[in-house]
Amino acid sequence: MGGDFAPVNEVHGAVECLRESGSRFHVVLVGDEPRIKAELQKLDVTGLGFSIVHAPDVIDMHDSPVVAIKTKPNSSLVKGVTMHKQGLVDGFVSPGNTGAVTAASTLILGRIPGVSRPTVAAIFPSEQGPTLIVDAGAVSDCRPQFLFEFGVMGSIYSEYMFKKKNPRVGLLNIGEEETKGNELAKETFKYISERKAKFNFIGNIEGRDVLKGHADVVVCDGFVGNILLKFAESIPGYLKYQFKKFADKSIMNKLMIGVLRGSLKEIFKDMDYTEHGGIPLLGVNGVTIIGHGGSPPKAIKNMLFRAEEVVNYKINQHIQEKLQGQ
Amino acid sequence: MGGDFAPVNEVHGAVECLRESGSRFHVVLVGDEPRIKAELQKLDVTGLGFSIVHAPDVIDMHDSPVVAIKTKPNSSLVKGVTMHKQGLVDGFVSPGNTGAVTAASTLILGRIPGVSRPTVAAIFPSEQGPTLIVDAGAVSDCRPQFLFEFGVMGSIYSEYMFKKKNPRVGLLNIGEEETKGNELAKETFKYISERKAKFNFIGNIEGRDVLKGHADVVVCDGFVGNILLKFAESIPGYLKYQFKKFADKSIMNKLMIGVLRGSLKEIFKDMDYTEHGGIPLLGVNGVTIIGHGGSPPKAIKNMLFRAEEVVNYKINQHIQEKLQGQ
Repeated sequence: MGGDFAPVNEVHGAVECLRESGSRFHVVLVGDEPRIKAELQKLDVTGLGFSIVHAPDVIDMHDSPVVAIKTKPNSSLVKGVTMHKQGLVDGFVSPGNTGAVTAASTLILGRIPGVSRPTVAAIFPSEQGPTLIVDAGAVSDCRPQFLFEFGVMGSIYSEYMFKKKNPRVGLLNIGEEETKGNELAKETFKYISERKAKFNFIGNIEGRDVLKGHADVVVCDGFVGNILLKFAESIPGYLKYQFKKFADKSIMNKLMIGVLRGSLKEIFKDMDYTEHGGIPLLGVNGVTIIGHGGSPPKAIKNMLFRAEEVVNYKINQHIQEKLQGQ
Repeated sequence: MGGDFAPVNEVHGAVECLRESGSRFHVVLVGDEPRIKAELQKLDVTGLGFSIVHAPDVIDMHDSPVVAIKTKPNSSLVKGVTMHKQGLVDGFVSPGNTGAVTAASTLILGRIPGVSRPTVAAIFPSEQGPTLIVDAGAVSDCRPQFLFEFGVMGSIYSEYMFKKKNPRVGLLNIGEEETKGNELAKETFKYISERKAKFNFIGNIEGRDVLKGHADVVVCDGFVGNILLKFAESIPGYLKYQFKKFADKSIMNKLMIGVLRGSLKEIFKDMDYTEHGGIPLLGVNGVTIIGHGGSPPKAIKNMLFRAEEVVNYKINQHIQEKLQGQ
């Protein structure tokens, strides 16, 4: 219920997902039952495996995450994550308030043994396939150990979900040399270097290396990562603005852009977040996929598929094996 | 001599600048005299006002800035900045090692009274004209006071150089609310709020607001700013890669991109750093403009024009008036 278009896009996305998957899994729609039912009536749901759990409260973008979790037990977020904790579902997806989803998942599900802080892993396009940015906003003030753990979790996610062999993990910095950067980056470089066996650490990388795909996993604190993520997501909008400005200059320009519209869509497809659907919250003792507030049905559908994959690849078990006892 | 193509592009850019300006100022070329002369012989320099100062040493990208400044007094960098300190020139431009140019300028020229740390101000394109990012790499670990001063300096630069009235200064953060962000961002929000009269503080802005142009000046530490700058500069290359991939798919696609080539160049013009030429180092007691290592002649030319403007608008005097005694 926390998404910008809830429960419309959520219901449509779930139904699309069930159709496409041949109902190989069951979807529980947690939210305002009458409104969910009203939406379902518009669709043909014959033979699809889903159920509804009533949760009328909404945690929105203006709520303080920790407070809301305590005061809104009947929110779709708290109810859904609690069902996951109880083992009633294998994974949880939400296009709601990122801070609230992170907080609820961490507080209710707990952490995987060996994980200090869960991390939100953003997916960037690059010239060499998808690149993970860890952390993209879960932890603003970090210690070297947190960044090291983000690297371990990102490496595992990249290996299983993106089929990258021995993923290259880079530390986001402002120069290649190990003496470069702020205090955190310098200390983290040392910390990771002493624990290299845990993943394929390629050293420092710079902002310009991300889209080039010089690393499969980019490690940084959640402050830097979140700013970079939101900046990157704003690029398609900026390009659209520039194309529009160009088109408005003459009829000839307008025609040219018109002819090219389909191609531009294809060219910019990799920058479209709806393809991946959502981004995983790694390190919690469960499977949580977080989506954009404005997620269209296609993104909701893909979030559900991602959750299925994280379950099937036993991502959490691999994380625990690498980090427990560290 | 520190640029990637020195002294070729530097000489060509300076000559272009002098021609375009009608020699309304004089350019001193500081570097390897025989090589500079060899380059000048290829050009028609009749009537242009320039001179050459021999400085055979080079500080390159691999040199440690502070060490190089002490051990290479005959480098073009140290000699050029020293001439500026002695009042022999009114400004200094260089496409050399950014760290070295920053260090040399700070050590040799000193700081403007009231300035704690000089800042490199990057220029981003936006839907509302150029946006300044301060700091873009001079200071990795910051205190709230530094960020406040960056805001003052950026505001003055934006007002005079980009003709923005009462420039909107935003603090780069991961949420709009003042409780959001890392420790530095939260403390800085308070610090600036208590000194609002010094500039038009619009509060926190997010990564997605930069290209939208929601602020004229974006304040952040040099670690975040440098990562964002290098990421932003890599976007045209990434788009080129995507367009090429598309063109390679079919002859039809190739033709379409071919027809559109000129238009694409126009559309992406705002993202081309050579238009601005270089970025200013603000807060030093002098005028220093830093360029890309690979600056083409056009960028060198524009750097010289920017230096002229900074001198004429008395940017440093305005900074001193706002910050002295703070």
